[in-house]
Amino acid sequence: MLTSARNQLSGKVTAIQRGAVNDEIEIGLADGQKVVATLTHNSIESLNLKVGSDAFALIKASWVVLLTDNAGVRLSARNQLSGTVQDVIHGAVNSEVALKLGSGAIVTAIVTNSSVQTLGLAPGKAATAAFKASSVIVGVNV
Amino acid sequence: MLTSARNQLSGKVTAIQRGAVNDEIEIGLADGQKVVATLTHNSIESLNLKVGSDAFALIKASWVVLLTDNAGVRLSARNQLSGTVQDVIHGAVNSEVALKLGSGAIVTAIVTNSSVQTLGLAPGKAATAAFKASSVIVGVNV
Amino acid sequence: MLTSARNQLSGKVTAIQRGAVNDEIEIGLADGQKVVATLTHNSIESLNLKVGSDAFALIKASWVVLLTDNAGVRLSARNQLSGTVQDVIHGAVNSEVALKLGSGAIVTAIVTNSSVQTLGLAPGKAATAAFKASSVIVGVNV
Repeated sequence: MLTSARNQLSGKVTAIQRGAVNDEIEIGLADGQKVVATLTHNSIESLNLKVGSDAFALIKASWVVLLTDNAGVRLSARNQLSGTVQDVIHGAVNSEVALKLGSGAIVTAIVTNSSVQTLGLAPGKAATAAFKASSVIVGVNV
Repeated sequence: MLTSARNQLSGKVTAIQRGAVNDEIEIGLADGQKVVATLTHNSIESLNLKVGSDAFALIKASWVVLLTDNAGVRLSARNQLSGTVQDVIHGAVNSEVALKLGSGAIVTAIVTNSSVQTLGLAPGKAATAAFKASSVIVGVNV
Repeated sequence: MLTSARNQLSGKVTAIQRGAVNDEIEIGLADGQKVVATLTHNSIESLNLKVGSDAFALIKASWVVLLTDNAGVRLSARNQLSGTVQDVIHGAVNSEVALKLGSGAIVTAIVTNSSVQTLGLAPGKAATAAFKASSVIVGVNV
């Protein structure tokens, strides 16, 4: 499969928490960080997801918020992956920022050019990629 | 009403499934494909949605993930509409891709230029537009 | 904290409504408009949110749909903030539109250039910024 979602993070399901309507699943990445996704019961069953299953998380670059200097603040976003800026590609309005995680995986975010300036996003800068569990699409190879 | 959401797919409500907190509604399109949206009880009531009601689904172009060659994979995204690429407009970082569905309706997606290359998105290419039920805004004319 | 989310709207929590799985919180803005966010119980507790707490809502510019001439239509999106276009920055594919609310706060939306044309978005034009409660990230300073 090929997908336009720039971020396809692969790992194994490390936890599934059942809710009344939605379930939460955790996918463990190679560096110990985790991606949390909210899915319906139906999706968990149709994808046959169990603890230990191989799975991948699709996260569109435009769903990712980048944070810097985030001491002293708490966010409701369940996913907050730490890394280092590897590359910034500037467009007319938006820029594409590649954040390298400890696992070596890259998380790409589309942010506006003024955010690149305000946050001082440049190669080597530490930053956090935040995104909501409800924005993550989960896939499996069958 | 005019809206900046590039995708406004109209149809009739074909099913409403009640949950504990959220409800799921299905809007049937002219080609038999369906759009699924997650709404709260309150929204279902305030919009007076019933099976058979006219309604439209607003889907922002940046919420759509495009897939090609998706044999052998299953995704949790409830909405997966099949079509053919009709047009690609290239920007500096992003491109706008128009996918024509069987019904003749167009679904537009904003994807990065590198995705256009990787997926080989060009007029005539078969592709699937995937988006989560929770990202769909539903509207009615009153 | 610095964040790439262009929209950071601050206020006080005016209501918290408990659901079976998710809670809804309302943050009141200076002009009396409100931002509604859907959070899990866990997030409400880990952020220690109570009625009267200071909090801010992060809303990415790409999650905002702009509406004009919205008489005669109802949308399921819980957040619909009214304002006046202050500025439009044009890119190759997308434009960045700044909407000034009654409170003086600015909501920025990324929309396609063709939407700018269709909606006639230009300084002085009245418009509404719509976004789903599930797309809002809530933060607090600790």
